[in-house]
Amino acid sequence: MSKSPQPYVHGRSERETIRLHDQASGLGFLLHEGTRYPPGSTVLEAGCGVGAQTILLAGNSPQAQFVSIDISPESLARAQERVSEAGYTNVTFRQADICSMQFPSETFDHVFVCFTLEHIPDPLVALDNLRKVLRTGGTITVIEGDHGSAIFYPDTPEAHRVIDCLVILQRQAGGNALIGRELEHLLTESGFVDIYVSARQTYASQNIPNSSEAVKKIFIAMIEGVREQAIAGGLADPESWDRGVRDLYRTTEENGMFCYTFFKAVGKKGLQVR
Amino acid sequence: MSKSPQPYVHGRSERETIRLHDQASGLGFLLHEGTRYPPGSTVLEAGCGVGAQTILLAGNSPQAQFVSIDISPESLARAQERVSEAGYTNVTFRQADICSMQFPSETFDHVFVCFTLEHIPDPLVALDNLRKVLRTGGTITVIEGDHGSAIFYPDTPEAHRVIDCLVILQRQAGGNALIGRELEHLLTESGFVDIYVSARQTYASQNIPNSSEAVKKIFIAMIEGVREQAIAGGLADPESWDRGVRDLYRTTEENGMFCYTFFKAVGKKGLQVR
Repeated sequence: MSKSPQPYVHGRSERETIRLHDQASGLGFLLHEGTRYPPGSTVLEAGCGVGAQTILLAGNSPQAQFVSIDISPESLARAQERVSEAGYTNVTFRQADICSMQFPSETFDHVFVCFTLEHIPDPLVALDNLRKVLRTGGTITVIEGDHGSAIFYPDTPEAHRVIDCLVILQRQAGGNALIGRELEHLLTESGFVDIYVSARQTYASQNIPNSSEAVKKIFIAMIEGVREQAIAGGLADPESWDRGVRDLYRTTEENGMFCYTFFKAVGKKGLQVR
Repeated sequence: MSKSPQPYVHGRSERETIRLHDQASGLGFLLHEGTRYPPGSTVLEAGCGVGAQTILLAGNSPQAQFVSIDISPESLARAQERVSEAGYTNVTFRQADICSMQFPSETFDHVFVCFTLEHIPDPLVALDNLRKVLRTGGTITVIEGDHGSAIFYPDTPEAHRVIDCLVILQRQAGGNALIGRELEHLLTESGFVDIYVSARQTYASQNIPNSSEAVKKIFIAMIEGVREQAIAGGLADPESWDRGVRDLYRTTEENGMFCYTFFKAVGKKGLQVR
């Protein structure tokens, strides 16, 4: 069990840490394409977790200065270790809750948030806080998945059911696993301007090298990570759960396919403050 | 009512013809990107309908020769008229059923099929026929949508329900509105080789010029086209139908978004025939 201050549907196990790093390295090009910060700029990474995205940020913009915050001290410790191992010196870590952080107004040139809003009960409160600490004219970048975007073949009700279990568990923990589709309206309602959302889709099959492996390591591993919670919560019995997971693995085998969409939203803090 | 030889879920009305041309011109770049045929090559377009894709094919590969077939003589007449109006002389039209056409083996250098397999009860029979008339070493290109890929905000059960109605009606007519996810396995099972499927996604919102208009003209118009069938078939009552359609329109308004994925599969006829 996690000793962390907030329920986190995926847990903070060693296996989950590996999964998060696999996810970041496997999807780095897809998700970080277009995200480069100028030399000397200061960037807040809000919700850095175990540092999976931090490594990419620090490496892609080596002359920018990052402040990476997370609510979990143990995740921060792992992130710090990871970034040190990689030899990056342009990241400062700080324990803070996005919804109640105490940075002065207009502290950062840019803000980056990835796979974080999906776990926050009120993302508008978080975005409001992030807008405050962002300098006028600066950008916010938000990246989230949307489990409703999963399309696969063979398509079975059991496979959909195990994904739905994660969606329900995440909702019970105060999050939203279908938040990708909401980024446009969330940024708009938070008062950001010049909003541009791009859908970033992955298509995996045995005809595309390494793609099916990535589905196993990133998506199916995430589903498998909530097996005990789903069963304990009465959302699935062990047999139907295992059938659903087996069906997901089947999509990575011969003739199978698996498709998933991430959403990347970029907005600007305009002159006009609400 | 249509006098055509086969049930076709979308009907063959004037409004549907306009919709199909809007679809082709609006999505032409997205779907035809990468499809160019060499001078002198002969290409079978299987299921040309009213010629919406034919115009793009003929224009993009002006020195290739196209033979465009369709099961419906009235659709063919419209296609022919359209292509003549556009001034293209590299298309021959012929009435034929993909599942029983009589071209000699190895007649065509390439085959192109768009929004057609989704309406055929046994797509493997169609693909088998298409493989026969394709020369060894030639390519097949198949483009299909997948209504299960529709992601939108605001997300309401009523909006999903009207989409589901079309999926059910299309299934009742022998088709499959979720066929996009199946292209990889269909081409594999038909014996094609070097298969590459690309997911081609559209993201529409008011922040992207013309995109919400396209959702209305292409997707919502298609849904609206089956209103009477859905109500007559007992799949929806008029009130819940109209609410679902209104909810879909809402996704094209302020803060809304609508996302849809097409799948484009290219395969080759290898030396080894099954």
